[in-house]
Amino acid sequence: MKTTTICQGCWEQMHVPIAIRGPFSILYKAIGIRKSRMHPNLCTVCESMFTKVKKHKQIATPVTILFADIRGYTDLSQSAETSKLNELLHTFYDQCSLAVWEKDGIVNKFIGDAVLAIFNFPLNRKDHVRNAVEAAIDLQKNCHDLKDSIGLGENKSFGVGIGIHTGECYIGEVGTAYKDFTAIGSVVNLASRLQSAAGPGEILLTSEVFRSVSNDFPGSENRMLSLKGFEHQVSSYVLG
Amino acid sequence: MKTTTICQGCWEQMHVPIAIRGPFSILYKAIGIRKSRMHPNLCTVCESMFTKVKKHKQIATPVTILFADIRGYTDLSQSAETSKLNELLHTFYDQCSLAVWEKDGIVNKFIGDAVLAIFNFPLNRKDHVRNAVEAAIDLQKNCHDLKDSIGLGENKSFGVGIGIHTGECYIGEVGTAYKDFTAIGSVVNLASRLQSAAGPGEILLTSEVFRSVSNDFPGSENRMLSLKGFEHQVSSYVLG
Repeated sequence: MKTTTICQGCWEQMHVPIAIRGPFSILYKAIGIRKSRMHPNLCTVCESMFTKVKKHKQIATPVTILFADIRGYTDLSQSAETSKLNELLHTFYDQCSLAVWEKDGIVNKFIGDAVLAIFNFPLNRKDHVRNAVEAAIDLQKNCHDLKDSIGLGENKSFGVGIGIHTGECYIGEVGTAYKDFTAIGSVVNLASRLQSAAGPGEILLTSEVFRSVSNDFPGSENRMLSLKGFEHQVSSYVLG
Repeated sequence: MKTTTICQGCWEQMHVPIAIRGPFSILYKAIGIRKSRMHPNLCTVCESMFTKVKKHKQIATPVTILFADIRGYTDLSQSAETSKLNELLHTFYDQCSLAVWEKDGIVNKFIGDAVLAIFNFPLNRKDHVRNAVEAAIDLQKNCHDLKDSIGLGENKSFGVGIGIHTGECYIGEVGTAYKDFTAIGSVVNLASRLQSAAGPGEILLTSEVFRSVSNDFPGSENRMLSLKGFEHQVSSYVLG
């Protein structure tokens, strides 16, 4: 991924050049504008000053949501050395970030052994659904090596589980006491449930996601899922 | 909760006065030190510059971890109006923050309809276990009113579920590409699993937590839980 000197989000959304690298970035830093942690080519205007830029607390926008977590981590956390576990998490966080950033998504947050990534905001990409799927494939590839490197190559219950869904979400700041930039709505919930249902090494897609990539993955398999909070079974695809 | 002019964390941990309110705070803002979002009386030194202060990526320290989430939110997100859902989340985030801050805990992160709060870091409190339990009670009380206010008073499947565990965690920055301040370790995992097992309106404690508050809650009930990733049943207490 090529790093840029101005914030790509502010440029694409508003045509405002905000320096995040190089000598001019010092001026912005002095007034509190810094690089975003969510993507190295974005700035904090894209997140915390959201309300000022868009004039709304949240906006409804089509996005693709990717959830990934480490299957077997709880198991492992009871037996493995802490230093090894920490190293594992570090590497997982790094691999997630790199895979997501490479496809113009943002890493919205990590919680424990899970990650929430958003595609198509603030960097609007026509192919955001495909981008998310490609990021998931890269992530699985990188994490497979990770498994070998910490001596868990043969452990079948250990691996990364991924769920992807796409649709309209609300993106923006939630809360007034603790302000938080995130995506909310039923699309986020379904992506999260899908991830919980994914086995180690699996990428689960909803029909809405699969539709955009089905031609390239003819080996994918339909799986009906009973998910917590969903009255009817949900049709999903195991990417293959 | 009384707001302070200097960062309580830096003062208690290092006896360094860092202005976060009032005229002197401008000087600190200019060099990038601001109020933390995790607690209004803490500054960003307590989190992002962790490695410089403690000279370690992470430190092992006894903490109490509280996870809370909205039971029935997925269900609701398929039927209720989006504006109502957003209002619900806003109020939930606010109520969580206020309840946790009041007891000197920090709101580490929100993800979807869940919150992760940490007690005993960076504000060290002898009674951190009790503080977390009291914050949970306050949170349940406040959210009960919330339920009525959005016309869900009679909906039994809707409510907040809370899980609390205590023990040694690693606190600090995880990741190098995307740096994140959080708590990791098996204590965090068990608290999260406990929360998943809590019904609407329930507060589930591990035996380690219950030990510190058992005298005040004689009506609590023992419940054996089969939790994902745990080989043996886990003994928990439903606070009552």
